[in-house]
Amino acid sequence: MKKLDDITLDKSSDEFLYIQLYNNIKNLIVEKNIEPHTKLPTIRYLSKRLDVNNVTIVNAYNLLEQKGYVYKKVGSGTFVQDIFKDDNFSYKKLSIVEKEANVSDINREKIDIINFASTSPTPNLFPVEDIKTVLNEVLDRDGGKAFTYQESQGYYPLRNAIRGYLDEHNINTTEDNIQIISGAQQGIDILSKALVEYGDIVFTESPTYTGALAVFKSRSARIIEISIQEDGIDIKDLENKLRTFNPKFIYVVPNFQNPTGCSYSIEKKYELLSLAKKHNFYIIEDDYLSDLSFNDEKNETLKSIDTEDRVVYIKSFSKILMPGLRLAFMVIPTAIYNDVLSAKHISDISTSGLIQRAFDLYLRKGDWKKNLQRVNYIYKERFNIMIKSIKQYIPKDISYKLPNGGLSFWFSLPIEYSSNDLYEFCKKNNVIIAPGSAFNVDQSDNENFRLSISSLEYNVIEDGIKKMGSLLTQFLNEYKNKKNTIDIYNPFL
Amino acid sequence: MKKLDDITLDKSSDEFLYIQLYNNIKNLIVEKNIEPHTKLPTIRYLSKRLDVNNVTIVNAYNLLEQKGYVYKKVGSGTFVQDIFKDDNFSYKKLSIVEKEANVSDINREKIDIINFASTSPTPNLFPVEDIKTVLNEVLDRDGGKAFTYQESQGYYPLRNAIRGYLDEHNINTTEDNIQIISGAQQGIDILSKALVEYGDIVFTESPTYTGALAVFKSRSARIIEISIQEDGIDIKDLENKLRTFNPKFIYVVPNFQNPTGCSYSIEKKYELLSLAKKHNFYIIEDDYLSDLSFNDEKNETLKSIDTEDRVVYIKSFSKILMPGLRLAFMVIPTAIYNDVLSAKHISDISTSGLIQRAFDLYLRKGDWKKNLQRVNYIYKERFNIMIKSIKQYIPKDISYKLPNGGLSFWFSLPIEYSSNDLYEFCKKNNVIIAPGSAFNVDQSDNENFRLSISSLEYNVIEDGIKKMGSLLTQFLNEYKNKKNTIDIYNPFL
Repeated sequence: MKKLDDITLDKSSDEFLYIQLYNNIKNLIVEKNIEPHTKLPTIRYLSKRLDVNNVTIVNAYNLLEQKGYVYKKVGSGTFVQDIFKDDNFSYKKLSIVEKEANVSDINREKIDIINFASTSPTPNLFPVEDIKTVLNEVLDRDGGKAFTYQESQGYYPLRNAIRGYLDEHNINTTEDNIQIISGAQQGIDILSKALVEYGDIVFTESPTYTGALAVFKSRSARIIEISIQEDGIDIKDLENKLRTFNPKFIYVVPNFQNPTGCSYSIEKKYELLSLAKKHNFYIIEDDYLSDLSFNDEKNETLKSIDTEDRVVYIKSFSKILMPGLRLAFMVIPTAIYNDVLSAKHISDISTSGLIQRAFDLYLRKGDWKKNLQRVNYIYKERFNIMIKSIKQYIPKDISYKLPNGGLSFWFSLPIEYSSNDLYEFCKKNNVIIAPGSAFNVDQSDNENFRLSISSLEYNVIEDGIKKMGSLLTQFLNEYKNKKNTIDIYNPFL
Repeated sequence: MKKLDDITLDKSSDEFLYIQLYNNIKNLIVEKNIEPHTKLPTIRYLSKRLDVNNVTIVNAYNLLEQKGYVYKKVGSGTFVQDIFKDDNFSYKKLSIVEKEANVSDINREKIDIINFASTSPTPNLFPVEDIKTVLNEVLDRDGGKAFTYQESQGYYPLRNAIRGYLDEHNINTTEDNIQIISGAQQGIDILSKALVEYGDIVFTESPTYTGALAVFKSRSARIIEISIQEDGIDIKDLENKLRTFNPKFIYVVPNFQNPTGCSYSIEKKYELLSLAKKHNFYIIEDDYLSDLSFNDEKNETLKSIDTEDRVVYIKSFSKILMPGLRLAFMVIPTAIYNDVLSAKHISDISTSGLIQRAFDLYLRKGDWKKNLQRVNYIYKERFNIMIKSIKQYIPKDISYKLPNGGLSFWFSLPIEYSSNDLYEFCKKNNVIIAPGSAFNVDQSDNENFRLSISSLEYNVIEDGIKKMGSLLTQFLNEYKNKKNTIDIYNPFL
């Protein structure tokens, strides 16, 4: 077995000495050749033994700490992290952006983990063969042209095909108003570049999608949160804040909202549109799931009832087709499309022409509809077993409102409990949830949490919720006495 | 023949009336059913005839103007633009970002145009069959996994393969320090998100790549330009400005600089590194062409001689492989890679997993080297005929320094001439060049211009330069008397 004392550095190598040392120690930890909580040698000792400068050791230890392999105790030294038993170490360091994403991907490979946090669809949903066919057809048809710079606004035939698709969804627009993007996340980023200057005000729903909050923060926007109710945004709250603030836009997910799963009533949709007109702001509508309605309710998009050209519509295919294409589109109001086009251009010049051409063919062949039906069927099965299991196993002290479709379910602990604590508790028991703190601007702890069924197969859901139910019962009992410490507001969390 | 008087609007349609009117008039113009410079009906007349609100006509006319189909004369009305004879109309409206890009793509399809502005490689350079093979191999091997969300930092095996590639280029790094990006432009954007806050100072070369300037502007950075000399950046100028300013980073292209084509001497490379250490700033090295040296000179990258982990290295494959992959990578200093990773995540979550996996296979198979040799051979032929033609045909009043490789050639008119004027003059004669104003922060007119051979076949270059030579002679004569009006500085240009 290799040990710390076996480490040697190669001074003739071009690799930095501190990187060499970092890799040596990291490998010892990862390969379980050093016990967790072992104290590493002192800087003085190790620099003497390896005959290198103190700074080399300091840099290596700092890097190990930064990457989560060791932890420091003031006055006592540097210790090996227990990276296998406790992966909080990395979780706690993450910014709000990565938090949700990371939650989603933790231990994805571990088979015994039930991951209710991930929003990634399972690969067996993807129409791989169909995509392979269209890719090859495009390569045969277009050859090298598929690999030139594509125009920034997007491959024209694809925009034309999308216009047709939108027509079927009661959105009437022109090819000029369609902007192809490399996924919905890029859409939010580009719109922020086009519309948000330093200190500008942006409204969001609360809670809302972490990735949007992170973008608005990166533009130094001032973010004002508007509460979500069971039937959509709280119009009173919105009107109140509009008296004080003059937002550039409001970012909303009106159908199967993330994370709450709720959908706006048709009245609220019209009220929001009317307020946007009155107060002269844009509405960014993020539509990632409106296709997944599992009852007869019609999920009008805001864009389909927007008579004032005020709605920027973002359509993602990540959940209903596959995320790895990195392809989405936006419908842009005429007044701002030049700004949006510039922002797209400086972001990545253009979205892959090959992928655009393949997707164009895919849309035109109608494979799209066939696949959506299939996906809808599979998700609906998962949705129904989820609803049934929730009713059966979730303890009565937990409150929730069941959605009519989509993939997210939103729950609340009794008010004095912390969902960050619940997250930790569940993780120790191999269940991953998304705590409410991931969906607020200030990441403050609260009583809410989200369970998603995107990445869980049908047969896992019932057992998962059964387990979740008993974990919740246990949690409600064990954490009852922690009340007083939990609800302290910590702005630095 | 359809005429303006035939226009009718469908009030029962869901399409906005002003969009209907816009499309009607646009089509008449595009289909040459209205003569250029025809006056459009007055707003009052048309609103009465079509029985719609004035605002509908105003909106349609505004949109037509915005898109360049009409122009307005104060007090006289709205007139049809001559979109076929004169495409300046769109050129003039473009922001600095699109300017260079647009110059590159104007009339690409017109066979009689010689385009010295475009930097897009010709599709016949692309190894389409090899890429098709690896795409299919990946789809067979990985199936749906190729379409899940890829980790934001990039597919690990690809980062490993790139580490090997870098090793051969004397850059020693770890997989942890490699960040996969969707093209070099995204790299610049992400680095700016990670490093630049409102009002921060950024240094650039002058002249420099338009797309970088646009990104820094979009972050509200204060951009300080440092002059370029024949052997690289002006160190005196840099030292001077470092006395006053404290930049976050300097953005440089040390080998075959864009647009000047010059390369830094090895002494200047070391001086720059030493100043970065002394004044504590990062260097962003954009390496898009260092592979294309056509003599024995060695083009060390700054990263390969960076002992202080201060260089952020961006490697693009757009010119030497193909731009349409939208794939590039960066080597990130350890101290900032968490920030860069967050910025990547909020920009587009991840680069297409399918493309990453295919490129990984392509690198591992060694197809990469075979292709680079082929591309190098083709570009070298073009380069040599360009050098020969320049010596033979470019008039002696035009000054230039011939580069040792790359694809850009930089020329200067006598000091009192305007290269914006030259651009217009050449375009009328079916030759497209890139004027110097595209490469400055303030887009100010100047005497310099760039000719690029990226998108010109071998057999076009000699004739092109011959034509360019006679155009230049004509221009120098005809525009001699315009001196006085040309060199007025216009901050709003």
